[in-house]
Parts: sequence; structure tokens; C-alpha cells
Amino acid sequence: MIKTILLNSRPEGKPSVSNFEFKTEDIELTIKEGELLLETEYVSVDPYLRGRMSNAKSYVPPFELNQPVQSGIIAKVISSKNDNFKEGDYVSGMLSWKTQQVSNGEGLNKVDPSKAPLSAYLGILGMTGLTAYCGLTEIGQPKKGETLVVSGAAGAVGSVVGQIGKILGLRVIGIAGSDEKIELLKSKFGFDAGINYNTTKDMTAAIAEAAPNGVDIYFDNVGGPISDAVLVNINRLARIIVCGAISVYNNTEAPKSLSVQPFLVKNSALMQGFIVSNYAEKFPEAMTQLTSWLAEGKLTYSETIVEGFDNIPQAFIDLFEGKNKGKMVVKI
Amino acid sequence: MIKTILLNSRPEGKPSVSNFEFKTEDIELTIKEGELLLETEYVSVDPYLRGRMSNAKSYVPPFELNQPVQSGIIAKVISSKNDNFKEGDYVSGMLSWKTQQVSNGEGLNKVDPSKAPLSAYLGILGMTGLTAYCGLTEIGQPKKGETLVVSGAAGAVGSVVGQIGKILGLRVIGIAGSDEKIELLKSKFGFDAGINYNTTKDMTAAIAEAAPNGVDIYFDNVGGPISDAVLVNINRLARIIVCGAISVYNNTEAPKSLSVQPFLVKNSALMQGFIVSNYAEKFPEAMTQLTSWLAEGKLTYSETIVEGFDNIPQAFIDLFEGKNKGKMVVKI
Repeated sequence: MIKTILLNSRPEGKPSVSNFEFKTEDIELTIKEGELLLETEYVSVDPYLRGRMSNAKSYVPPFELNQPVQSGIIAKVISSKNDNFKEGDYVSGMLSWKTQQVSNGEGLNKVDPSKAPLSAYLGILGMTGLTAYCGLTEIGQPKKGETLVVSGAAGAVGSVVGQIGKILGLRVIGIAGSDEKIELLKSKFGFDAGINYNTTKDMTAAIAEAAPNGVDIYFDNVGGPISDAVLVNINRLARIIVCGAISVYNNTEAPKSLSVQPFLVKNSALMQGFIVSNYAEKFPEAMTQLTSWLAEGKLTYSETIVEGFDNIPQAFIDLFEGKNKGKMVVKI
Repeated sequence: MIKTILLNSRPEGKPSVSNFEFKTEDIELTIKEGELLLETEYVSVDPYLRGRMSNAKSYVPPFELNQPVQSGIIAKVISSKNDNFKEGDYVSGMLSWKTQQVSNGEGLNKVDPSKAPLSAYLGILGMTGLTAYCGLTEIGQPKKGETLVVSGAAGAVGSVVGQIGKILGLRVIGIAGSDEKIELLKSKFGFDAGINYNTTKDMTAAIAEAAPNGVDIYFDNVGGPISDAVLVNINRLARIIVCGAISVYNNTEAPKSLSVQPFLVKNSALMQGFIVSNYAEKFPEAMTQLTSWLAEGKLTYSETIVEGFDNIPQAFIDLFEGKNKGKMVVKI
């Protein structure tokens, strides 16, 4: 019995469960020479998938309708006719939302469950950690003593960015949407200050107070009014790392924000959008660094693990309500 | 008889002549050892001066009320007790809006009227040319065959940017506000295409048509809705050079524009604000290159020369109506 989740229709605004279709097939998969049979263990749900569900031009092609959705997945090798993988291995890769599937091994990496929990390879030792590390170091060019603001700070990427910021000697301010998250930022992740945007009336003033020397680096996961408030507080030669814009992904009309140009001109400031694959040549260095910081206890992470294949779409939708703390993962 | 123009009040919105005060003094200036007496020949009026007339934090301190306004000026040395300058020399520097003034020589550069007309040292061989050259080459990182869009293209900086773009092998599209300016862009400055934003209903479509391969580099002098329309047409890894935002300098409320973050993320695009002094170490190279292109006839320029000291404030105000073609200069 194999279950698959297909994209049934393109979301308008916020995605709903009805955009997805479940298919159950009573078949047994077989493999040919060079192939391997995989059983899904963990499925990553990420805000960027929203973009692929639309039909708009973007850095990756849109998902096709009536085809399986794909995301980062950790799977167990059930059987193998591929010399690079053997039964019992665990692999990570971009795979389909299926309980079982056949692969030719391309794009899969072996992961070691003795070094870290399997789910970590979807998060801090996966795309999440690499995004945080490469964005902050390559674009942010952090210098000890500078001030870093992170939006979506309790999210998967944000919580890692803040911790790396502390390791590198920055003053780190996190913005998140609940008092519970703010508490977590400070107690678990070592942020210097946190701002709850849901209870703060004047975000511009709150950021100014938390960053008395101004903002040198802004790691932006959200866009929208929160980013407007940070922009007003940037310093000369500030670097704004544009990683995501979750606050506007579900907008059906192109959203308006404070015009950035006057702030960029008067501060000689930089805004740079990126996707992690731009920095592929940095991945070996980044993985070595992240694994060692994790082993030394300098880096920690939180995950929200949802149980059950059938709950993948809802877990994805819940990202847009901020229901996750840290990386959102579905355990099959 | 010495005339001076003081900043009388800070403009709210668009500046008016009443923001300035004329003072006439019947005195004779004398100089001490190390000083020189200067007679103003040409005065540069520039959009960035609007920023210094406000009281807001910026890259240069605001002008003080009831003090002379300053800008780039070409002056003749009337008498000198400074070994570096002699009577009859011409100098350029940031000087006060006065018919005569005393200087200690700091920050002044000698200019050679035999190599180019004096007014050129306020334009193509001055801050204007340096801004165009450094912004386009340092931030734009142009590669032959790419597409460059320039807004404020018939302005002082824009017309030089477009010409340098052509010299470097780019497809160059200019945006300006009248058919006459568009004609000038194509006939005089060699732009490949021009778009009149005052008569074009759908700017996004017009840019897409003029840039069939998308926009790789955008040299932005204006901000506002024109920049929104360019943003929609940028390519992956696009570079947006944020040089100015004249369309919003007179706004009294912070203006709103299309949110840039989603476009920067999905295209891994860069926006970089700058002022020319950031690239001071490039100036010698830039001056050599600009002077040689000018001598070879590869570079041309236009100026709007207004006559008379008393007309400086009005010439400055006219910048915001786009009444200049190329560099706006006042001849005393």
C-alpha cells in the first residue's frame, strides 16, 4: 500500500488542505539495476514550497498539477541495486511526498544517524543550517561587535542565524510572534533581546531601543511591515540579507511596503536576495563548521515534529500561522 | 559687493524660492597667510542637496539654517597667499553659494580649462561622471551583452551611465519624461531604446518589450513607480544600483512602493545604495578613463546652463520638474 500526495489545484492566497489530493495504490514497487527502493522516514515542510505551488516564474520551476509534491526527505533504503547505497542506509534528498518510491540515487546523500538524529539532516545539518550559515557569513559579512536583527527568529532558519551571530560575537535581536517564542529565543538560543511583533505597537521604536547602536545586519525572513520597521533603523553600510518574505507569500495582490531606495541611498546599504544553492561551493566548509558547533554544544535547535503521512499538508499550512517552533518536520 | 544665499527655512515637500534668503554685503574680503580669495564662476545644483536641507539623519550633516548653502563650485583664484594656488588658477570644490569667498585651500582641486570647458568639471569630469562610472562598474559589474536600464536617463548622471554602458557592450534602455528627452537619448547618447514614462500607460509591459532578455542591471536615479516596473522585469542575479530617489525626495510622508523582497529572493538579486565618496580610491582610474573617452569622442554630455547668481535657487527647484537636460549648472 503506497500513499502519495498530489498538488490538486494551485492555492489562491493561503493554501488549504483541499489544494492537495491523497492517492492510495495497492501496488508493490520493484527496482531495476542501478535503482534503490526508499521508505520515507521524515518529510520537511518549508515556506518556499508555497512559491512552487504557484505558476509564477521563479528560481525553481512550479510543481505540476496532479503530480506529487516534492520536498526535502530522509528515507531508508529498503533494497538496492545501486553500488553506492545498501539496504539499511539512510539518505536525504529532494523526493516526492510518497510513503515509498524508487530512485536512481541521483541527488541523494547518505546521512549518519549515529552523529545526529535523522530529522536534524532536514534542519540544522540540512538546508536550514546551510541557509543560515551561508546567508549570514557570505552576505552579512559580520564583524565582532556589530548588531544583527533576525526576523522570523524562532523559525528554523532564524533560530540558527541568531546562534551563529552570537558565536561570531554580534549583538543579536530576534523578532517573533509570541511571548513564548521570545522567551525561547533568549533562554534557549542565547539572543540578547527579543521583540514580539504581535504585542508591540511601535516596532520602529522597539527596534531602536533594542539596538541602541543601530542595525548593521538584518537577516530578513518575513518582509512586510516588520522589515519596514527594521529598515528605518539601519546603519551606514548595513547589509540586509533577504532570505524570505513569508509575510507576503500568500498575498494575491503584489504587496506594498515602505520604499527602500531612500534608505539604501542615504546609508550606502546593501540588500541581497539569495537561495542557498548559490553558495554550493561553501557547503563542505559550512557542514564541517555546523557539525562541530553542534558537537561542542554551541549550537542547539528546536523542531516541531508532526506525526503521520496524512498530516503533511496541514503541517505545511500551519507554517503560515507560525505554529512551528524551529524546523517543521513530519515523521512518517 | 558680495552676495550670499542662505537657507532661510527647511522645505516641506517641494522646495520654493522662499526657503532661501539673499544677502548683499558691501564689504571687501581680505586674506591671511595660507588663504586664497575666490570668485565663483559656476555653481552646481544637484538633487542630493534636497536631503541636506532637511533635518533628517543622512550620510552628510544637514545644512544649518541662516547659513550659506554649499555645493560643487568652480571658482577663479583672485589672489593667493597659499603656495599651492596662484592668481588666475581655477579650482573646484565644495564651496558656499557666494559670489566671492575666502578659502584655506583644503578640499580644493585645480582644474584645467584647456582640457575641457570649466563647467565639465562639475559634470562629466566631476561628481556626475564619477558617480556614473563608479556605480555602474563597481556595483553593476557589467558583462558584455547584458541589458542595462537607466531611470532619470536624460539627467546628468543617467546620460553618462547609458553611454558608459554602450562603451562596455551592453544593451541600454533609458527611461525619461518627455519625447524630446527620449529622442536625445537615442540620437545624442546612443541608447538602444527609450521609454517616456509620462505617455506610457503600462510601464511594466513597455520595459519587457524593450528588454526582451530581461533586465540584468538597473541604474536607479528615481525610485517610486518607475522602479517598481523595472523590478518586475529583473533577471536572476540582477544588480540594482540605487543612486537616487528623486521621485520621492519631496514626499512629506514616507512613500510606499512594491515590496522588493519577493523579487530579490526569487532572482537572487542585489540592491546596493551608494554615494560616490565610497569609491574614492577608484577616482584616479575613473578620471583617466572618463577624460580619455571624452577626448576620443566616445562620451558626450549635455548641460543646462542657467545664467546669474540670483537664479541659483530656482535652478535647483527646477531639477524636481525635470527642466534640465543633463547637468544643471549656474554660470555667475
